[in-house]
Amino acid sequence: MGLGVGLIGSGYMGKCHALAWTSVATVFPDVDRPRLVALADVTPEMARQQAQAFGFEKGTGDWHDLVSDPEISVISVAAPNKFHADMTVAALEAGKHVWCEKPMATSLEDATRMRDAARQSGRTAILGYNYIQNPMLRLARNVIAEGQIGAVNHIRLEMDEDFMADRAQPFSWKSERASGYGALDDFAVHPLSLLSMLHGRITSLVADVAKPYAKRPTKEGNDRPVETHDIAQALFRTEAGASGVLMVNRSAWGRKGRIALQIFGAKGSLLFDQERMNELHIYSAEDPTGLQGYRTILAAPGHAPYHHFIPAPGHGLGFNELKTIECHELLKAISGDSDAYIVDFERGLEIERVVHAMARSAQTSTWIDV
Amino acid sequence: MGLGVGLIGSGYMGKCHALAWTSVATVFPDVDRPRLVALADVTPEMARQQAQAFGFEKGTGDWHDLVSDPEISVISVAAPNKFHADMTVAALEAGKHVWCEKPMATSLEDATRMRDAARQSGRTAILGYNYIQNPMLRLARNVIAEGQIGAVNHIRLEMDEDFMADRAQPFSWKSERASGYGALDDFAVHPLSLLSMLHGRITSLVADVAKPYAKRPTKEGNDRPVETHDIAQALFRTEAGASGVLMVNRSAWGRKGRIALQIFGAKGSLLFDQERMNELHIYSAEDPTGLQGYRTILAAPGHAPYHHFIPAPGHGLGFNELKTIECHELLKAISGDSDAYIVDFERGLEIERVVHAMARSAQTSTWIDV
Amino acid sequence: MGLGVGLIGSGYMGKCHALAWTSVATVFPDVDRPRLVALADVTPEMARQQAQAFGFEKGTGDWHDLVSDPEISVISVAAPNKFHADMTVAALEAGKHVWCEKPMATSLEDATRMRDAARQSGRTAILGYNYIQNPMLRLARNVIAEGQIGAVNHIRLEMDEDFMADRAQPFSWKSERASGYGALDDFAVHPLSLLSMLHGRITSLVADVAKPYAKRPTKEGNDRPVETHDIAQALFRTEAGASGVLMVNRSAWGRKGRIALQIFGAKGSLLFDQERMNELHIYSAEDPTGLQGYRTILAAPGHAPYHHFIPAPGHGLGFNELKTIECHELLKAISGDSDAYIVDFERGLEIERVVHAMARSAQTSTWIDV
Amino acid sequence: MGLGVGLIGSGYMGKCHALAWTSVATVFPDVDRPRLVALADVTPEMARQQAQAFGFEKGTGDWHDLVSDPEISVISVAAPNKFHADMTVAALEAGKHVWCEKPMATSLEDATRMRDAARQSGRTAILGYNYIQNPMLRLARNVIAEGQIGAVNHIRLEMDEDFMADRAQPFSWKSERASGYGALDDFAVHPLSLLSMLHGRITSLVADVAKPYAKRPTKEGNDRPVETHDIAQALFRTEAGASGVLMVNRSAWGRKGRIALQIFGAKGSLLFDQERMNELHIYSAEDPTGLQGYRTILAAPGHAPYHHFIPAPGHGLGFNELKTIECHELLKAISGDSDAYIVDFERGLEIERVVHAMARSAQTSTWIDV
Repeated sequence: MGLGVGLIGSGYMGKCHALAWTSVATVFPDVDRPRLVALADVTPEMARQQAQAFGFEKGTGDWHDLVSDPEISVISVAAPNKFHADMTVAALEAGKHVWCEKPMATSLEDATRMRDAARQSGRTAILGYNYIQNPMLRLARNVIAEGQIGAVNHIRLEMDEDFMADRAQPFSWKSERASGYGALDDFAVHPLSLLSMLHGRITSLVADVAKPYAKRPTKEGNDRPVETHDIAQALFRTEAGASGVLMVNRSAWGRKGRIALQIFGAKGSLLFDQERMNELHIYSAEDPTGLQGYRTILAAPGHAPYHHFIPAPGHGLGFNELKTIECHELLKAISGDSDAYIVDFERGLEIERVVHAMARSAQTSTWIDV
Repeated sequence: MGLGVGLIGSGYMGKCHALAWTSVATVFPDVDRPRLVALADVTPEMARQQAQAFGFEKGTGDWHDLVSDPEISVISVAAPNKFHADMTVAALEAGKHVWCEKPMATSLEDATRMRDAARQSGRTAILGYNYIQNPMLRLARNVIAEGQIGAVNHIRLEMDEDFMADRAQPFSWKSERASGYGALDDFAVHPLSLLSMLHGRITSLVADVAKPYAKRPTKEGNDRPVETHDIAQALFRTEAGASGVLMVNRSAWGRKGRIALQIFGAKGSLLFDQERMNELHIYSAEDPTGLQGYRTILAAPGHAPYHHFIPAPGHGLGFNELKTIECHELLKAISGDSDAYIVDFERGLEIERVVHAMARSAQTSTWIDV
Repeated sequence: MGLGVGLIGSGYMGKCHALAWTSVATVFPDVDRPRLVALADVTPEMARQQAQAFGFEKGTGDWHDLVSDPEISVISVAAPNKFHADMTVAALEAGKHVWCEKPMATSLEDATRMRDAARQSGRTAILGYNYIQNPMLRLARNVIAEGQIGAVNHIRLEMDEDFMADRAQPFSWKSERASGYGALDDFAVHPLSLLSMLHGRITSLVADVAKPYAKRPTKEGNDRPVETHDIAQALFRTEAGASGVLMVNRSAWGRKGRIALQIFGAKGSLLFDQERMNELHIYSAEDPTGLQGYRTILAAPGHAPYHHFIPAPGHGLGFNELKTIECHELLKAISGDSDAYIVDFERGLEIERVVHAMARSAQTSTWIDV
Repeated sequence: MGLGVGLIGSGYMGKCHALAWTSVATVFPDVDRPRLVALADVTPEMARQQAQAFGFEKGTGDWHDLVSDPEISVISVAAPNKFHADMTVAALEAGKHVWCEKPMATSLEDATRMRDAARQSGRTAILGYNYIQNPMLRLARNVIAEGQIGAVNHIRLEMDEDFMADRAQPFSWKSERASGYGALDDFAVHPLSLLSMLHGRITSLVADVAKPYAKRPTKEGNDRPVETHDIAQALFRTEAGASGVLMVNRSAWGRKGRIALQIFGAKGSLLFDQERMNELHIYSAEDPTGLQGYRTILAAPGHAPYHHFIPAPGHGLGFNELKTIECHELLKAISGDSDAYIVDFERGLEIERVVHAMARSAQTSTWIDV
């Protein structure tokens, strides 16, 4: 039997973690089946019910029970963002490994505290940046690393959805300043995690944030000023010498799960869109003259670890399965594999720093060094 | 605790069943977590190892052990096609429910025997036509049923992959007559299952089968005549009055998991391609003049049961998750829900009859009534 | 000054010919500017007006005036199909070169008569199969001819529009038997011309034709039985050993100008769709493993004769410009260039024979040798 | 007979103007066929040869001959950018109408001088921003103007090609400072012209410019520092309250003629890409729930003035035909039609101001008010 697992939270991402913990040993032959020890949720009743549904041995209304449970070696944190810091720090101090959903924390101070706790604990602590686990983006990373598109000189990153696009939708916590900046922490961290893994660090940037709607209706029928920014964009420069643009919008009618990358190099380019997550488009200037064009590559067994899910090409992985891959990488990291492909708390803190720099740049209307 | 489950086979589709059995209760709140009782494989060692990996309580080298196990209520049959009939008939006769992979059997006689056993047993017996479970094809079905594209008058179905496209690939059992017709039973059953669920029955057809390569190299370095047909196509008419074309090709370079549908009606049309399985394209002649065009609809929570997997639109389901949906429908059928969306052995036999009619038509070069 | 030109007809295709005659010398540096001598239309008034609009020196209500005009060397025939035979035969007998719109004629007898007249005259006589002139399909032809996708073993051809898709549209001559078979002569000739140029001859086939609507409303408010078939499809075999499917539909809601080709060979495949006429998709099995996929090639100066229109890649040719290319090939043929890329009356007659074989097969429900 | 026309320049855009002048009366029934009086080029010989090829009555090596020719009413200026100011000012002062290629001029002073000359002359003076003439972008304009996507709140504009993408390509005048800024004047003017026509004015911006390659090889085999910027991007705000991003890159491997627009409003959004110039994608939040998605609208006769070119939908216009539409609008403007759809010198100067503001912002690394 494999590691003992605790899960905090059973909503959107909690369920996604549960599926990953349940599937990881079925998918990956090198994994001992984890033992699903306990699930914590806001009430004991809900926790017990979800534990049963998700196949955990027990449920609890107090997440501290997981931290103190000697049967548990690793804790999934899928609770609201504002609790991330307290939960992960407690878990790390108790000697647990930690798998925390993004964004890391609601303040740079908290994120730094988490990073420090991870350093001191010596435990594995990673963030749930599952998009990086897509076999097609792993392929992109290899293609870039092997120099197949040459030195990268220009990058464009977009992330757009439309869950805030409806002006008539009642004012919610998503529009309150207390929830964060808006699109910056909701979305920007995702393309930034991809940039971090595929290319490298941003060194300077200038950003702008915008509100599609200055006010939104309250349930009482009034209009209340919106305090967050559903739209944000930045120009940036990278350590490796590329220029780039980052664009995020959570009020973009028609976009549902778009994370679009355009990466240009001296010998070719790469395109990707999460809405067609099983495709990568590659242009090589070394293809024969007259026959050059973007090649649409479909996910296939040759693109590890796709083959562990399906032995036939072109059949398609889903969003949830990225979490299973992430879970596998977490287990590799815990077992000491230094090649595990993860966003640890060090790298996570770097990503947070860029987001906060963007916010500062937008406030001051100036270029900022990161 | 839910039903006791037995699984025969742990290869490509066996793993897919295992994932479905493991995930179904996590995904669907109305499901009691099944008990994974036993897994059968060709040797006891392999069976025990796979049982452990997939989370089954025990493994056995003899599938009859599952049939006689009182703890087991439902048996997944994911063994080679030629064993389907014996296994499912034995299971049904022992009072088990059956979930059998497609194609149903290697002969019409066997398929009929399976149908008869299902009838007599009174148990639930379904076939693994998972593509029908795609929420986008459920949407297609609803759109058609509600008359949104009007009376369907023309249909084109394609299924293409390229695993037999390489002429240099050594002669294998796939090219032996004993394996079946070739593309007809390997592929045609899939689009036929979709046609059956979305539109209705074929009443007459004329078919042609072809070999891209007359010979293939043996491992000994000789050329051996190919006995199966990697390519097949048919013209057909349906009970509902539509004309159509069915095309399948397992030697189509570049196609990986293509199942393409074009369905034309008196008020609009639908397009689908499994290679982009999270999209459905709808054209409505009732859209405003000058603004008509195919609408690319991305899978979203509104397209049941997508929402049980992911609460956000456009994030993408994968091929394996269709099996989890199928598992859920199986459980609904077992519990007596007459709305369960399944291909039972009655319908499965109809599909087989069409395939055999295609083979006969190709041999006689004549139109055939089905 | 170049050749003297006469044009019969100034409607849809007549205007298209006029544009070609006006533009050909501007586009192609090797062409002497043609002299636009006379235009014939149904009345002298309309002819004179259109002559002025299109830049012809004079207009006439009698097309025989063009045949007897010594200033005219080549005659464009863009009159209704039923006049093609008389006009082209008269022109050829008068020693004129002929550029006749497709379909060739409304009966096989007429088409044969036209072919015979062309043979006897020794003049250049071509048909307006302009789609073959698309630089992307010329590229396709070269790619196939050079063996880059290997021996072709399977072909699918589709041509679909929706101008007959509306059930409520009043009964018109398009639904009268006198207008021809329907989709067969309206559409099938186009993909057949492509097949002829890209691959070779059909040797046998079985076809089916269908009516989406048995009746259509008359202007008087009654329903009148439809006599033509808006839908047709055929299975076929080619001299070169490929199997294939041809599908045409002029009542396919959502399709506007679709002519879709799928050509599979032993080393790769090609895809094309006229609705995106500036793209060709090529899959090569010789691309590096893990990086194989359809390459989307955009029309570019390297794809002759694109460069004569635009010196920059990816800017896009239009449907009308294919006619200008065709005009250029016609002029090359007239000047004795045996490499001129044209569908002459010999080849045109072959295409007609296939269409009539399809009609016969549909009537007899049997395979037919062509 | 229509207006007398003079053409200066017979290269890329000169040929494009010639085709437009030759075709405009054939395409548009309301136009009197222009008289092609004279063509000027760098030498008398070249001018005479091109005049003959393009159908002009005479050629001259001195463009002043056109300015002083009483037969000429309108002059097309398709000479190198640095001559635009002198040529157009002279033409306007001589009472000619002017059709000048973009960019307007190589300095803001020259552009202002041109605008002033146009004002004083009272003649029609337009710039060759042909992309705005695309029927699909006219449709986009109407859709926006009619409020179908609601108030626009976010815009992204990209223009990318790869003619400067090859590092090995010898140093040319395109990399010399004297040629301008680089991508800013080469490309940015195009999306800015679209923004101007579809949405309105930019009020503030911050820009960045970049070099993919610091040096390029000279023909002598040395490396020479590059003085222009092949890449540029800007964040901007518009008078109408939208935020946006402008990105241009002439060294973007794989991009051939990309001009991509994303326009988001309170009720929907629009997508366009010039590489598929016959398509417009519209998302309407008012489509039925569960059936929302981007609609791919193909150019059709309903999208004026497409119908003057082709009476059937989906057949495709080409890049060159946009110039014919522009020529028609020019003729409308000359005839006093205040609805003519043109970029006159007033608007052209505004576009230049934005480009120069971008350059200034890039130099100073600050936000700039336009």
